[in-house]
Amino acid sequence: MSSIIDVTLPHTSYNIVISPNTLEDVGNHLTSLQLGKKILVISNPEVFNHYGETVINSLNKAGFKVFYHLIPAGETYKTLESISQVYDVALKHRLERSSTLLALGGGVIGDMTGFAAATWLRGINFVQVPTSLLAMVDASMGGKTGVNHPQGKNLIGAFYQPRLVFIDPMVLKTLPIREFRAGMAEVIKYGVIWDQDLFQQLEAEKKLDSLENIDLEVMDKIITKSCQAKVDVVSQDEKEAGIRAILNYGHTIGHALESLTGYSQINHGEAVAIGMAVAGKIAVKLGMWQEGKTERQDNLIKKAALPSTFDNKLKSPEILDSLQLDKKVKAGKVRFILPTDIGQVEIRESISSEVITTVLEEIKIK
Amino acid sequence: MSSIIDVTLPHTSYNIVISPNTLEDVGNHLTSLQLGKKILVISNPEVFNHYGETVINSLNKAGFKVFYHLIPAGETYKTLESISQVYDVALKHRLERSSTLLALGGGVIGDMTGFAAATWLRGINFVQVPTSLLAMVDASMGGKTGVNHPQGKNLIGAFYQPRLVFIDPMVLKTLPIREFRAGMAEVIKYGVIWDQDLFQQLEAEKKLDSLENIDLEVMDKIITKSCQAKVDVVSQDEKEAGIRAILNYGHTIGHALESLTGYSQINHGEAVAIGMAVAGKIAVKLGMWQEGKTERQDNLIKKAALPSTFDNKLKSPEILDSLQLDKKVKAGKVRFILPTDIGQVEIRESISSEVITTVLEEIKIK
Ligand SMILES: NC(=O)c1ccc[n+]([C@@H]2O[C@H](COP(=O)([O-])OP(=O)(O)OC[C@H]3O[C@@H](n4cnc5c(N)ncnc54)[C@H](O)[C@@H]3O)[C@@H](O)[C@H]2O)c1
Ligand SMILES: NC(=O)c1ccc[n+]([C@@H]2O[C@H](COP(=O)([O-])OP(=O)(O)OC[C@H]3O[C@@H](n4cnc5c(N)ncnc54)[C@H](O)[C@@H]3O)[C@@H](O)[C@H]2O)c1
Ligand SMILES: [Zn+2]
Ligand SMILES: [Zn+2]
Repeated sequence: MSSIIDVTLPHTSYNIVISPNTLEDVGNHLTSLQLGKKILVISNPEVFNHYGETVINSLNKAGFKVFYHLIPAGETYKTLESISQVYDVALKHRLERSSTLLALGGGVIGDMTGFAAATWLRGINFVQVPTSLLAMVDASMGGKTGVNHPQGKNLIGAFYQPRLVFIDPMVLKTLPIREFRAGMAEVIKYGVIWDQDLFQQLEAEKKLDSLENIDLEVMDKIITKSCQAKVDVVSQDEKEAGIRAILNYGHTIGHALESLTGYSQINHGEAVAIGMAVAGKIAVKLGMWQEGKTERQDNLIKKAALPSTFDNKLKSPEILDSLQLDKKVKAGKVRFILPTDIGQVEIRESISSEVITTVLEEIKIK
Repeated sequence: MSSIIDVTLPHTSYNIVISPNTLEDVGNHLTSLQLGKKILVISNPEVFNHYGETVINSLNKAGFKVFYHLIPAGETYKTLESISQVYDVALKHRLERSSTLLALGGGVIGDMTGFAAATWLRGINFVQVPTSLLAMVDASMGGKTGVNHPQGKNLIGAFYQPRLVFIDPMVLKTLPIREFRAGMAEVIKYGVIWDQDLFQQLEAEKKLDSLENIDLEVMDKIITKSCQAKVDVVSQDEKEAGIRAILNYGHTIGHALESLTGYSQINHGEAVAIGMAVAGKIAVKLGMWQEGKTERQDNLIKKAALPSTFDNKLKSPEILDSLQLDKKVKAGKVRFILPTDIGQVEIRESISSEVITTVLEEIKIK
């Protein structure tokens, strides 16, 4: 059973196809898009080792002339230098305006491939085949593409939309478990900020900590609903002028924790999980939602084997300072996305440091 | 007397202000755009030496916090490496989404600054202050930005629109004369492809070969009409799907000559002038327009001290081969933009090599 989400934006539209166990069909899904003959697949050695052959055979069978280029795995390679190498390969194979760059990988490969596609010949076709849960439910949609500057994440980039996002959830079977859980943090986020049904579906599962522990049909639904949530939000606000900010639920504190721990101890998903726990408690303190709902959220976090507390070596004042440095601060006031119900949040511009400190102190591992 | 052209595109709009002798007012023109406080001026040492101080003082007076960064003059610096340096400076001065990159220079500076603006933080404000005639009437409008790849011109880039184009024609007084004439080739092009009035205005002038020989009010009008012509065409076809191709009038043969002479002997404007002469004669051969009109066109080319013939060391077969390599070739047929009247052209997809050869042989210096 496959699902299709139709994404309609002011000046373009595309489909997200979620189709389990059909990676070998990806080529067929491209034939109706009237792409040129040439496709350059961008991947990393890990992912390509598992799925490269299947994808390339499928594209060949569908009549495309296929090339590939691998970038070493990891965020440290998400650089302008890697993009420059993609340009060289694009030139070598004489890619044309009608040609396509296809991203086969997690968010790192997706963000880079999108940026290269946005800027080669001022924009060629771009197709996403996300292989990590985070890329499936988050990074592959919304049009943000880019690379890191040595001194800051995602500082270089462009808004650029794919022609197709093709998701085969079965590729998650080889995803390292910690990466799986990181993606699940974003899934839980969508339940809290947007989709009560999704939230309840997650509550119905015994465990959310690995693919093996989740019914496969349920997994497909979870991915589909998460994609739909992101698309709903982004379609209303393609260039991040307003409502899109709610996607940053859990990310205010999350980013502070990531940066304070040097992006090594805890990963993005773990940081977001803690961030959601903090945001939930702040909302309770402010009388915006109820204790019982925070508990339901924190239960999902636990089922995904994600943390909702953090090490007491991190000091609350440090975290507060780090918030001030973050982009989410407007004129010294900290902006928070806070839940008001399951499936609903509000943007609050000026949360006092007292409330934040109180919650941070409560939440620490004693 | 200043003119304002209002450019309205599907998802953005901006003004082109042509205002002689008012460079010191540029800051005021920015205040109504609701830009953030920080402006980073990008220029080259030649241009900055003449106009940097005036622009920076003007911006400071208008209340902006101004930084600048210079890139050595010349096409060889139109590289990703130069962009990378702009990023470093943008980071150093903590430019924000609301900040502005301002291009003060010719097309090289404009193209690079636009690309940096398009890609820093996924897009910040961009203002053009073109200082060469070519940049005023061509490069600064239309949204094409980018840099060269070591193996090909303008291969890396993005479509990105400025918030304002501010033109003070008086800065042309310091422009090298050969650059002035190169810009005049594009002006004549607009007369032929789009604006009969402009064409007649050019015919009314005794000489078009330097700023000194042209009445200043007439010069302002020429620039305004040229900008309007480009805007008219581009507004109908922002992403180059159809009619925009007519802007390539004279460029089919032009590009072949530029590349065959290694981009050194003749410059872009000279190549375009010869290209227009060739196109005019092909149109006569095909019975599309009249001998008398070709002569009127070639007269303008001569008044601008531009060439309408080329050295007989270049062989016609070489030129034909070079056309085949060009992007303008679709399935072996050479595409030409050919005039049908003063102010009117048509796109013809398949011009035979016989006709092209005959005209090339006629046109050579004997
Ligand atoms: N563009 C956006 O809107 C957006 C949103 C969120 C995150 N991001 C970006 O996404 C990146 C993070 O994405 P990510 O979490 O996917 O990281 P990632 O791309 O580094 O992938 C994580 C790891 O899993 C491996 N992997 C991926 N799929 C696999 C599979 N099926 N089998 C085996 N191994 C697999 C990868 O090789 C990598 O080692 C960051 O750079 C972040 O900035 C972008
Ligand atoms: N984006 C577009 O749509 C578009 C269109 C046409 C051309 N272009 C690009 O524009 C570039 C050519 O532009 P260009 O002809 O302006 O070249 P340029 O920017 O190199 O300027 C030509 C020379 O004139 C000098 N100069 C410019 N203004 C001056 C002034 N007022 N006084 C003294 N010196 C001055 C410059 O320093 C340079 O040495 C090419 O890179 C081309 O690809 C872009
Ligand atoms: Zn996230
Ligand atoms: Zn030109």
